[in-house]
Order: sequence, then structure tokens, then C-alpha cells
Amino acid sequence: MTSVISLLTDYGLEDGYVAACHGVIVGISPESRIIDVCHLVPSGDVRRGAAILAQTIAYLPIGVHVGMVDPGGGSHRAVAVEAGDNVFLGPDNGLLSWAVRTGGGARAAYEVSNEEFFRRPVSPTFHGRDLFAPVAAHLATGRAPAELGPAIPVERLVSLPAPTSLVRDGAAEGEVLSVDRHGNAQLSIGSDDLAALGITLGDTLVVALGRRRVSMPFRETFAAVPPGEVVAFTDSAGLIALAVNSGDASQLLGLPPGAHVRLSLVP
Amino acid sequence: MTSVISLLTDYGLEDGYVAACHGVIVGISPESRIIDVCHLVPSGDVRRGAAILAQTIAYLPIGVHVGMVDPGGGSHRAVAVEAGDNVFLGPDNGLLSWAVRTGGGARAAYEVSNEEFFRRPVSPTFHGRDLFAPVAAHLATGRAPAELGPAIPVERLVSLPAPTSLVRDGAAEGEVLSVDRHGNAQLSIGSDDLAALGITLGDTLVVALGRRRVSMPFRETFAAVPPGEVVAFTDSAGLIALAVNSGDASQLLGLPPGAHVRLSLVP
Amino acid sequence: MTSVISLLTDYGLEDGYVAACHGVIVGISPESRIIDVCHLVPSGDVRRGAAILAQTIAYLPIGVHVGMVDPGGGSHRAVAVEAGDNVFLGPDNGLLSWAVRTGGGARAAYEVSNEEFFRRPVSPTFHGRDLFAPVAAHLATGRAPAELGPAIPVERLVSLPAPTSLVRDGAAEGEVLSVDRHGNAQLSIGSDDLAALGITLGDTLVVALGRRRVSMPFRETFAAVPPGEVVAFTDSAGLIALAVNSGDASQLLGLPPGAHVRLSLVP
Repeated sequence: MTSVISLLTDYGLEDGYVAACHGVIVGISPESRIIDVCHLVPSGDVRRGAAILAQTIAYLPIGVHVGMVDPGGGSHRAVAVEAGDNVFLGPDNGLLSWAVRTGGGARAAYEVSNEEFFRRPVSPTFHGRDLFAPVAAHLATGRAPAELGPAIPVERLVSLPAPTSLVRDGAAEGEVLSVDRHGNAQLSIGSDDLAALGITLGDTLVVALGRRRVSMPFRETFAAVPPGEVVAFTDSAGLIALAVNSGDASQLLGLPPGAHVRLSLVP
Repeated sequence: MTSVISLLTDYGLEDGYVAACHGVIVGISPESRIIDVCHLVPSGDVRRGAAILAQTIAYLPIGVHVGMVDPGGGSHRAVAVEAGDNVFLGPDNGLLSWAVRTGGGARAAYEVSNEEFFRRPVSPTFHGRDLFAPVAAHLATGRAPAELGPAIPVERLVSLPAPTSLVRDGAAEGEVLSVDRHGNAQLSIGSDDLAALGITLGDTLVVALGRRRVSMPFRETFAAVPPGEVVAFTDSAGLIALAVNSGDASQLLGLPPGAHVRLSLVP
Repeated sequence: MTSVISLLTDYGLEDGYVAACHGVIVGISPESRIIDVCHLVPSGDVRRGAAILAQTIAYLPIGVHVGMVDPGGGSHRAVAVEAGDNVFLGPDNGLLSWAVRTGGGARAAYEVSNEEFFRRPVSPTFHGRDLFAPVAAHLATGRAPAELGPAIPVERLVSLPAPTSLVRDGAAEGEVLSVDRHGNAQLSIGSDDLAALGITLGDTLVVALGRRRVSMPFRETFAAVPPGEVVAFTDSAGLIALAVNSGDASQLLGLPPGAHVRLSLVP
């Protein structure tokens, strides 16, 4: 039986950190298939890590999903959260919370404290290698989450505030959640928010960025407009993205992550 | 039986895009071995993607090879091309064409339109995850390319113009195909072009870059000259590369991808 | 039986070089599990590659470990070194030496010269693909290192000078070994060096960087100080690291790799 372990970290790829985690896992559970979700989460950016994991989880096989983005080092307790048939492992700082919700909500949670599952000595600054990797591998070999430590009431788990998205006065307000490699700016505004405003494909939007106003069509894909032109579309996560066909919307429009954005139908 | 699926994309590694493709494949074909050819193809750079795939394919096991670099989003039809014992999957924009030729030429081609093999709903902007990944996985489990959709005459497949390389007037002319991480500039000029000019190892070349002329030896490897010196050698793809031992030739000589280059024997 | 092959190179991820190595390995040894230790070793930086491999090896399963960082191209002879139950493969330029020592010291060594194991023709500039990858794969399938070529006295292997670390006059002197993605500067000074000076957790250190003097606490983790403050801690490799909680110590303190550092107890 192949079991799947996925890893999301902010360890980067310039060092052997990720390989050490792989090595520890393979040593304990040689049959596991490891999927690297992302290791380039910006250093300590819990919200970005949470967003990537939440937008990817639906496409990963059932398994053990490890998140390690913890600006406080090992200062948050380690938790295992059962959601649907998946188990999520990570620091209790909200990193897992969006993926847990997407994955069906927490059924049970445990503090990961049973040192029997750790690799010792546990480095205080590398819980990924010494704590999460071996624990994930043991779960993959069939050990139960309940063996990891005392149960935690799921309502006590730290939850990250959801990205702001608000529909009012005929407009949808939100923020830039992330900017991908192509310069597309993903907003916290969902296609359902636009639907609630009666906006449909083919409409023209007014996008307010601070004091600036930019008009752009709402189309099915960025390729629906000529190269160089701006466009809004529903991205592969169901969220509204602003793009420039064959260009970099984030740079052109000045849209760093966190920037406030307001969308409405052109009057 | 292990089947191999290779992936080449311009998705980058900062997001969970590649992982979503892996996850979809593993969900359908848990036994497949996935080889990541490259995910850092410059955004939308079809020629660069085509070159990487063509230069790597001979070293990959027989399998299903997926290319996803499509500046037009999903605007090109998806095709499956049989060449030798391999199947290539990608947009019909020429991305696959050089690898198909290297791999023995197209024997048969099919439009990938049978939605039975897709993951639905298909995001208009993420065919890699919803179309190519599941189709590749189904092929890996033994489904036949002919099941994917109607046959396409192979001569109708979009072919990328080959990199220019011309031998005339005692010189070989070409362009910088790519610059690797070490700053080595790979030219579209092959070692056979130099052979046609009677140039052999040990000769001194005149390299014309626009109006500049640089002399350098033609040696077996960049390490044959002292550190800091320029050299031409036949690279691991059989193409002429310009390098500086322990230095960055692209920067030193001003050789961006696409730059015109002319090589001749020193008079 | 699953065998493990690990790869460390300076090939980067923008090309298909790493994939070609994977492909060659899988073609020969389809059951092998490949662990990518790191492919972003700075171009030609043998010391950095040696440090990454040495700090990771204890966490990798027993197997064949390939290192390919060779500023001289294929100018160093290729060697196979048996240490503990591992086999290390790479150029005889010292790249493997620290990991070999960490892994128990060299028991036996062989020059890799038996072309039966190579992929031919061997590109003079891509020994990773044509020499080390196929040799590693053959070892993984059970061939013996002694088959690779003539034995080499282990004391003849090139050894990289160890990072300087010196305890004298009440201070530990060393250099910045590396700077990770978070900006943490790893020193060549070990926690044992501080112990030899009688320095314990909670003490305040004076860190001399050239003419500058910076005071900082010696704590268990960087998270033990408020965000923005400097701290020294023992990192996951047992070495002293200088960090700024939620900041970039290398940038703030001016600590490039190679910089000289002197640590002492605050008077």
C-alpha cells in the first residue's frame, strides 16, 4: 500500500533542509510517496503558506500533510488535525486552518507530544526534520493520530482570520492574496462575490486600487484579451485574478500582496 | 510495472501548481514515477521549453511526457503525439515539436478532447492540472492515445521553426539558444557545423558578436583553459557553447538568448 | 528492495540537467528512490557543496550519494568512497570529504574508470549524466564499488581543509560558513567551542565582526528574543548561528560567507 505524505515549508531549496526531511521519512516509511507542495513559501509567511496548502489540498491524494512555516521557531505547540480522511501536521499557528476547513473541517485534534515518535535529540530550530517528518512517517505506516498525544478540543485550534472579502454598496472589496510567477494577482474576492453583484462574463469592471481606477473586462481566461491588455478572470482556485495577457499585472498595476482592491460593474 | 511520466512547465516553484499536477497523477496512477524535467521555463517561453525538452528526452525512460508552456492559456488545442515508444502531451503550439523530432518523429497524433479523461470542472486557466495531468495518468495506466480523441494528420501539427544555423562563406552563423546557470551560452550551431568548416579541437575561432570580434580556442571542455579565459566547446547536447572557465560568459561577452553569433576559423 | 540514491549538484533548476540524471538512473534502476539533496549549490562552490552534504548525510538512508560540483569540469578523477554502509560518488576534489568523515571515514576508495558502467559517449562536460548517474544506478542494483576501477589508498583522497575554528584567549574564532534563506549566518564555530569557553545558554556574547562589536544573548532558539533582535543559538547542525528573530541577520550585521567572526563572553 502506497501512502502519501505532502510537505509545505519555507525552507527554500538552497540547503539540504528539505532533503533531510525526505531522508528521515524514507528511513521510517520506505514505501511512502512524498509530494513537495511548496518549499518557497516566503520566510515566515504563515498566511501565504496557508493559502497555498488550502488551494492545493483538493488535488492531493488522501494522506498526511505537513506544513512547516513558523516564524516563532518551535514556539507553537505541534498539532495533528484529522479532517475528512486526511491528517494535517504542523505548528498550531493557523497555517493548517484554511486547508483543514477546505478539507472538511477538523474532526479531531491532538497535541504532538509523544517523544516516542520523534527523532532525538530534537533540534529546537528544526522541528521539520526531528519532529514532523518522523511523526508523518509513523502515521504513514499506520500509527494512529491519537497515539501522538492528548486530544485537543478542535475549537481551541488556532484559526487564521480568513482573507477579507466584503460585498457592499454594489462593490466587492478584498485584498491581493498572492502574486504568481506570471505576475497574476490573485484576489481574496471569489467568483461568487461577483455573481452576488450580478456581474457575469463579458461585463466590464472598474477596479479601484487606492485612488486609481482601471477598467478591464471580466473574461473566462487572460488569453481572451489581446497581449498587453488587462483582464479579470476566475482563476483555478475559484478566486478573481487580475492579469495582463503575456505581461505582468502585479508590476503594471502596482499590486503587491496585501493591497486593497475594490471591484464594481462599470456604471 | 512502473510507468514514467515527465513534466515540463513554466509554473514555477513558488506555488502549489506543480504539486497539484503530481497529486492528480498519483490519485489516478499511484505506481507512476514522475520526473520533473523543469518547472522554471521562463513564463510563456515556448522555444526555451521546446529546447529543454528536446535536449533531455533522450535521457528519459520511455513514458508519457507532458509539456505545458502556453502563453495563450488554453487557447491551443491539446494534442497527444506518438513518437517512437513515447507519448507527448501538450498544447499544439510547437512546444513538443523538437522533442518529437528528436524522439523519432510523429507516428500518430490525436486531439485530446475526450472529457472522460479530464478532471472536471476543467479550469480554463489550468489545463495542466485538470486536463494534461489526468490524461497522462490514464495513459500511464494503459489507456491508448487513440481513446483521447480524433486522429490528427501529423503534418498538421504545429512545428516550431528550428533555431537558425547556417554555414556559408567559411563561417557558421547562429543564435544564442540559452544561457545556463553557470553563464555558458549555448548556440544553435552544432559541432557538425564546425566540422563542415574543417574546424577541429585545438583550433582558434573568431567569434563575431555584432561588431565585436573575440578570439577563443575550440577545446574539449571549458576546463581546458585557465580560469577567467574564454573558450568554445561542444556541450552535452552536441551544440557549441561559449564559456569562461570559472566565470560567466554570457555577462562578460554580452550574450543574451537570441543574440546573433558568427563563428569562423582565425585567418 | 528499495535502494536510495541521493544527488547534490550545482546544476540549478532552470534546465533539464537534473532530470537527465534522474532519467538515466531510472532507466537502469527503476526501483531506486532518488533524494535530491540540493541542486542550487552556488556554481563551482565546492566548500558550500561539501558543507550541505556533510550536514545532511546523517539524515539520509543508507545508499549511494552522488556529489557533482566541479569547477574544473571533468578535470578531477571520479572516485567512489565507501564510508560506513554508504558509498559516495563524485570528483576527487574534496567535495565528498566532509560527508565521508561525518559518515564514519573512508573504508575503501576506487577510481571510477570502468567504462562498462558509463553511458556512452561520455560528454566531457556532463559527467553527472553520463558517468555518475549510471554508475550510481548500477551500484544501486547491487554491483560492487570494487568493480568500478582500481583501488585508491584512502589517504590519497583529496580532503578539503576543515572550516577554521579556533579557541584561544577566551574567545572562539571562525568564519561564516553559509547564510540560509532566512538570513541566518551559520558559523564554523561549534556549540562545543562555546562550551569549552564556559559559555552557557542565557549568557551574553560579544560578537566581533571586523572592528565592530555586537552584543547578543546566547539562547536556545532565535525565537527566544523579541522580533527584530539579534541572537546566537546552536543550529540544527550543532553549529553556532547568528540570527535576527523575524529578520535577516546576514544583511543587518553584514555577514557574507567567509567573513571572520570572534565570539567571547561579555566582560
